[in-house]
Amino acid sequence: MPARRRQQGPRRLEEFAFINLIKRRFGRVPRRVAMGIGDDAAVVRGPSTRDWVVTTDLLAEDVHFSLDTTSFDDLGYKAAAANLSDIAAMGGSPTYLLIALAIPTTLSQSDLSRLYQGLHRACRPHHVALIGGDTSSSRAGLFLTITLIGEIARGRAVLRSGARPGDLLYVSGTLGESQAGLMLLGKALTRGIRRGLAPADRARLIGRHRRPTPRVALGEALASRRLATAMIDLSDGLSGDLAHLCEESRVGALLDRSALPLSPALRRFAALAGSSAESLALQGGEDYELLFTLSPRHEAAVQRLGRQLRVPVTNIGRMMPARFGMKERDRHGSLKDLAVTSYRHFT
Amino acid sequence: MPARRRQQGPRRLEEFAFINLIKRRFGRVPRRVAMGIGDDAAVVRGPSTRDWVVTTDLLAEDVHFSLDTTSFDDLGYKAAAANLSDIAAMGGSPTYLLIALAIPTTLSQSDLSRLYQGLHRACRPHHVALIGGDTSSSRAGLFLTITLIGEIARGRAVLRSGARPGDLLYVSGTLGESQAGLMLLGKALTRGIRRGLAPADRARLIGRHRRPTPRVALGEALASRRLATAMIDLSDGLSGDLAHLCEESRVGALLDRSALPLSPALRRFAALAGSSAESLALQGGEDYELLFTLSPRHEAAVQRLGRQLRVPVTNIGRMMPARFGMKERDRHGSLKDLAVTSYRHFT
Repeated sequence: MPARRRQQGPRRLEEFAFINLIKRRFGRVPRRVAMGIGDDAAVVRGPSTRDWVVTTDLLAEDVHFSLDTTSFDDLGYKAAAANLSDIAAMGGSPTYLLIALAIPTTLSQSDLSRLYQGLHRACRPHHVALIGGDTSSSRAGLFLTITLIGEIARGRAVLRSGARPGDLLYVSGTLGESQAGLMLLGKALTRGIRRGLAPADRARLIGRHRRPTPRVALGEALASRRLATAMIDLSDGLSGDLAHLCEESRVGALLDRSALPLSPALRRFAALAGSSAESLALQGGEDYELLFTLSPRHEAAVQRLGRQLRVPVTNIGRMMPARFGMKERDRHGSLKDLAVTSYRHFT
Repeated sequence: MPARRRQQGPRRLEEFAFINLIKRRFGRVPRRVAMGIGDDAAVVRGPSTRDWVVTTDLLAEDVHFSLDTTSFDDLGYKAAAANLSDIAAMGGSPTYLLIALAIPTTLSQSDLSRLYQGLHRACRPHHVALIGGDTSSSRAGLFLTITLIGEIARGRAVLRSGARPGDLLYVSGTLGESQAGLMLLGKALTRGIRRGLAPADRARLIGRHRRPTPRVALGEALASRRLATAMIDLSDGLSGDLAHLCEESRVGALLDRSALPLSPALRRFAALAGSSAESLALQGGEDYELLFTLSPRHEAAVQRLGRQLRVPVTNIGRMMPARFGMKERDRHGSLKDLAVTSYRHFT
C-alpha cells in the first residue's frame, strides 16, 4: 500500500510529514504515473511491447548493515543501488520504486530524511519514480524492503541461464574494493595497516563500499544490442556469483586469475594487509559489477561499448562444458578447482 | 531480488529448500511470466492498453501481529489478503506477488511452510503468480513485506479522490466482525462473555478476523463498469477510512448510523460485551470490505452487481460538500459530528 496505512496512531502525523518529504525529495512525478503515493495502490501506465523486470530486497539491521558503520544516507543509497544493480543485471531500465520501512522509536525524523536522501541520490541518475511505500513502527531494529520495477523490450532480458561453452566471461569495473572498504571500516585491521594506506586509497576503497555504482547503462546496452548471453550482478562475490551463473546455464568455467581487474588501491591495501588482492576480488561481496558472457564474435563490440560508457570491461575467462567444472588458471598456467566462498554480509 | 541473495551461509541450503517449496506451492507459472524466481529479477510480459496497480505492505511482529494469537497459516493468508484488498480497492486484477521475509532463528521450516500455505490459499482464487522473493535472517522478530502487482484497463483505476457531493456512499459485506474476532482472541474479555456466545457466532467472528475475504471481483466490476467514483478498502476502520476518502476527494459525508450492515453474530457479541455494534463497525479495523461512492443513477446497477456476485452492498450515507464535514445521523434522525477513531492494529 503506497501510504498512510497500517499505521500506529502516534506515528500517523509523522508519516504525513514523511510523505511530503519523500514527494519533495523525489521531485516531479513522471506523467506515466497515473497515481503515485497516497491511494490504496499506485497506478502506472504499462507500455506495450515491453516486459517488466521486478525485484525485491529486504535489509535487516545487524544482519545486512550496522548503524555503527553505516550512515543513514549510505544505507538509503546502498539499498537502492543493490536493487538498481539487479535490474541492470537483467538489462532492464529501472523505472519505479516502492519502499517499506519498519522503524524503531530510536530513529529521528532527520535520520529518516537522510535515508531518503541517499535513496534519492542513487535513483536520480536513472529517473526512477518513487510510487509507493509503507511505514510501520518496529519493536526491534530497522528493516527496509525495496521493490524496484524496470522495463525492457519484450524478450530482451538477459537471464543467468543463457551462457554456452565457448562464450567469453567478462566483468565490469574493478573487483574486491568493497570488501577492502568494509575491512577498513571494521575493527579487525591493525593500526599499522590503517596508517600505512594513503588517504586517497582509503577514500577510494571505502567509497566503493559505501557508494557502489550500479552498472545500469552497461546492462541496458548489453541487453538491447543482444551482446550478452547471460548476466548476473556481483553481490555475493565473484566466485559465488559465477557459480550461480554456471549452475543456471549448466556450464563450467575457466577463470584466468591473472586477468582479474584489480585497482592499484586494492593492490596496495592487500600488500599492507598481507592478503591476496585476487582472493579479495574472488570472495569479496557487494561490488555490484556485472558478470556476463558473450560469443567471441561480439568481443570487439563489447570493448567498444565499455569505452563509450567509460566502464572498464575485462575478459576474465571462458565458459566450458559442465563436466569441466569451475577452475582457475594461475599466472604460471596451472589449473586448479575454483574455491567458491560466499560472501557474508555484515554479521 | 527474486531469490538466493544476500543470504547468510548457514541459511543458504534452507533457502534452496524454500524456493522449491514455494515453487511447488504456487504450482504452474503462467506463460506471461518470462522469468520467475531464480534470477536477478523477475520478467513479466506487460500487456498493452493496460495500467499496472502496485502496492507494498510491511508486517512487523508484535506491531501488526502476535505469534501468540496468529498461526503462520493465518499470517500468510492475512498478509496476502491485505494486499489483495488494496488492489481490489483500485478496481485492479491482482496478478503478481513478491515476498520478502526476515526470519528469526526460532522459526522452523514447517512454520515457514505454513506461512506460504496461507499466502497461497489467499492468492489461489485470483490466479496470482509468485514471481519473486528475498529471505534473510532476523536478529529480532519476524518481518514480512509483500508487494502485489495488478492490472487494469487503462485509465479505469478508481482513486480515493473521485467522490462528488451528492454521490451515494456504499460499503460491501458486514462490518466490525474482525474487531470482535480479535477481542475474542485476546485476554480482555471476561469468561462470561466468551461462554455466553454461541460457538457458531464465535467461529464466524474469529473467522472474519483470521480469514477476511478481499473483495476482488466486486472491485474489478465497479471499476470496469465505471460504477464507482471513489473507492478505498477498510483496513483502519470505517470512520478513519471514510475520513481518508473525504480528504482526498475534498468532500464531506453524512453517514446513516442505522444503515450500517451488522451481522446477527456481531449484534449478539456486542450485547454480551456491553458495547455498541455500530461503534465496533465504525472503529474496528481489518474488515477488508470496500467503501465506495457512486452517482445515484447507478444505484440499481450496483445492487444488481452485488446480487450477481453474492456480496451484500449497502448504502450507508451520502457525500456532502466539504464545508459540511463528516456527520452521522442516529436512528432518531439527529445529526452529530462523526468521531474518527483510527484502528490500532495489534499492539
